[in-house]
Amino acid sequence: MTDVVKILKQALAEHQVLLGEDVKERYEHIWRMDQPLDALAVLLPSSTEEMSQILQICNKYNQPVVLHGGLTNLVGNTITDKEEIVISTERMNKIEEIDQHARTISVQCGVILEEVQNAVKPYELLFPLNFGAKGSAQIGGIISTNAGGLRVFKYGMTRNLVLGLEVVLADGTILSSMKKIIKDNSGYDLKQLFIGSEGTLGIVTKAVLKLVEAPKSRVSAMVGLKDYDSVVSFLKYMDRGTAGTLSGFELMWNNTYKTLTTEPAVVKPPIPHDYPYYVLLECLGSNQDNDLQRLEKLLETALEKNIIIDAAIASTEADLQWFWTIREDVRVMLTHFKYDQQFDISIPIPLIGEVANKITAALNQLDVVQTVFTFGHVADGNVHFVVGKSELNETTTEQINDIVYSPLKGLGGSVSAEHGIGVDKKKFLKLCRSDSEIATMKLLKKSLDPKNILNRGKIITIE
Amino acid sequence: MTDVVKILKQALAEHQVLLGEDVKERYEHIWRMDQPLDALAVLLPSSTEEMSQILQICNKYNQPVVLHGGLTNLVGNTITDKEEIVISTERMNKIEEIDQHARTISVQCGVILEEVQNAVKPYELLFPLNFGAKGSAQIGGIISTNAGGLRVFKYGMTRNLVLGLEVVLADGTILSSMKKIIKDNSGYDLKQLFIGSEGTLGIVTKAVLKLVEAPKSRVSAMVGLKDYDSVVSFLKYMDRGTAGTLSGFELMWNNTYKTLTTEPAVVKPPIPHDYPYYVLLECLGSNQDNDLQRLEKLLETALEKNIIIDAAIASTEADLQWFWTIREDVRVMLTHFKYDQQFDISIPIPLIGEVANKITAALNQLDVVQTVFTFGHVADGNVHFVVGKSELNETTTEQINDIVYSPLKGLGGSVSAEHGIGVDKKKFLKLCRSDSEIATMKLLKKSLDPKNILNRGKIITIE
Repeated sequence: MTDVVKILKQALAEHQVLLGEDVKERYEHIWRMDQPLDALAVLLPSSTEEMSQILQICNKYNQPVVLHGGLTNLVGNTITDKEEIVISTERMNKIEEIDQHARTISVQCGVILEEVQNAVKPYELLFPLNFGAKGSAQIGGIISTNAGGLRVFKYGMTRNLVLGLEVVLADGTILSSMKKIIKDNSGYDLKQLFIGSEGTLGIVTKAVLKLVEAPKSRVSAMVGLKDYDSVVSFLKYMDRGTAGTLSGFELMWNNTYKTLTTEPAVVKPPIPHDYPYYVLLECLGSNQDNDLQRLEKLLETALEKNIIIDAAIASTEADLQWFWTIREDVRVMLTHFKYDQQFDISIPIPLIGEVANKITAALNQLDVVQTVFTFGHVADGNVHFVVGKSELNETTTEQINDIVYSPLKGLGGSVSAEHGIGVDKKKFLKLCRSDSEIATMKLLKKSLDPKNILNRGKIITIE
Repeated sequence: MTDVVKILKQALAEHQVLLGEDVKERYEHIWRMDQPLDALAVLLPSSTEEMSQILQICNKYNQPVVLHGGLTNLVGNTITDKEEIVISTERMNKIEEIDQHARTISVQCGVILEEVQNAVKPYELLFPLNFGAKGSAQIGGIISTNAGGLRVFKYGMTRNLVLGLEVVLADGTILSSMKKIIKDNSGYDLKQLFIGSEGTLGIVTKAVLKLVEAPKSRVSAMVGLKDYDSVVSFLKYMDRGTAGTLSGFELMWNNTYKTLTTEPAVVKPPIPHDYPYYVLLECLGSNQDNDLQRLEKLLETALEKNIIIDAAIASTEADLQWFWTIREDVRVMLTHFKYDQQFDISIPIPLIGEVANKITAALNQLDVVQTVFTFGHVADGNVHFVVGKSELNETTTEQINDIVYSPLKGLGGSVSAEHGIGVDKKKFLKLCRSDSEIATMKLLKKSLDPKNILNRGKIITIE
């Protein structure tokens, strides 16, 4: 046992410090559950004060720590070195207050997204953030990674939904600003520093989240389009015509749609397989009948004007389920090949069509590539590629990375729209951030965590 | 002429360096045009590179600078010391690009808000930020102060409308990230540091602003309510019923409404003077007839349910003009007394009624106070007080400040919802920010501007 672990054992209760076999029974990632965790210890604080105490000790002894929340990060942010101590936030799981009039919920960092969603439902309120890992992802990790997901177009990323924040700095200082107010221009908005910095500048311990009135209607349609320019026109047309209710505008390229609506997929295609592009759109409003009528009219006119070439409306709850299963059941793609490589990039909206075509054509030149599935939250400029490969080797992985990432620099794109940088994308950071930006990130890291103990080596490397 | 001014004269073109009488012909604030500017020089860069060159020189020689944009700041941010050099951004006034498909506009920092609003109109796009000083306020200052104004409830503060940003740091380093993308989780979101930090961490030189589709309908109503709890219920009710179109929800207390609709005010009251609270609401949508019908139905039901006690709908363009003149022509209040003291605070929405009543009662105890006008963007938790006084002296000014500001600490409120801290509110900063928050602000300032040359002494004092 190292000195710092001994001191931590004295400072915390026995059940809050896991060692030896208890550490090995845990994992560093929810999708790597065959590899036992290797770390000096796992600490289980249950309060901000305990978190502060832990960091005071670790900082004093130059002991690096790694944060473990729901372990659903996609870029290796919970990867742990055996010389590191893991702090797990699983016991900081209290919902502290729901204020239905201020429309806020105050939570500790270890509360799981789905619990937040469910807790506010009885008040006819909605916490609009939503994504696949909602059953495991914790609010602290969600804030630290500025998570996105579906419905960002209407409600924004996590950054837009955080009103108050409490953070513990590397030296144990508690920065608390658990405010419920929407507007606050009293000095620097410090919370912005910690949202999306992946736990490298401070540890989120609590937050006040913004809630919205739960929508009373939901309508959807699957639309076929002849080319990418039509997709852009259709987005503008629908956005203008639906007056703030447009909440989803998911684009699928032809082969993606085909695969997601053909066996082994469990759902059938609502419109034929003949069109180059498919948009699945959603509006969240206040009146089901009116919204459905408006959608019908808008789509009729779009057909007449030749902006779109086919459309099917989801008019029942069963239809909604059907249409959204197509978009959400992306695992169907993975049945079509042995190995895959996935991307989450952003590109200015008008350029997506041409850039994605060029990238796909280049990828298809490689022998190892069997297929390329393209889809994304196009209203946010966010494109996902799933590249199916016949074999796994470092050289082709790098070739594929190069084909997808290298055009982004000249286009003002990003190598990570949603998932963050972590360790997996560190070497690509320079493709979308300048030398002076990276130098400024390092300056901030050195100022706020001078001993480099917080999530060391994630996003940037401090020499 | 000091050494640094000589060097600057050599580095810049002659017309870019104003000295002596040319300095005195200028002002440090648009509302203090009787006092000539007193400064070492006024510099007029026209490009980011020139701004960088200026700061390299000033930083080398420890020369403090003050930024002058549209000079409309309300908290003394453009106040200039005679040992300082003024950098005016008035020549950095180019609109660089409007991208109607990405729905962005890229501008230099000196472009005026109204020019942005007008430039995007032909594309049926809207830059939704709007406030009284739109004819003078420059984008650089707007971003540096995270300006708010009307329609924040629907579209957010300036922070929500900045996609890309270019900033020059104190040492002349250019941090440029002029991206048009909505989602970008590639490392620290550095632009957040400079939005709302009032020019103390870096100088904004360019920005990519987010545009939205221009709404095709606008409906409004003036509503009377019996108590503050009803105001909160009505806000939730309208928000839920109007599905994302609610763009304004302005509250006026009885005496404010009365004053704004009685001579010398130019407009008459749409509903009688009998109610404790008045809400002026606005929805921006896609169909005038439908939206009007929906509003009528919603208000009928609200009357039946006793949530509201009276309502008048603005059904024509003239009505809209009439109703909004009431709220916007706040100068009418100033005709009712000789001296005034104004406040811009935020309070969690459910607490506003009681807190505002207590503050008003305490203010009315003071002999010097003639009247208190209360109104605000209540959907954002933002309350304005205009306190009318019979005389002007430091003691009563401080008493009034104390009555308004001191309750905020315990309530999680803010001494500045929109206007910022500048120099005028510096001494109140500690009422809404903790010691460790202020220490972190100072740490950031020292890291990014170690010689303390940028807007020195604004927000915080570096010893």
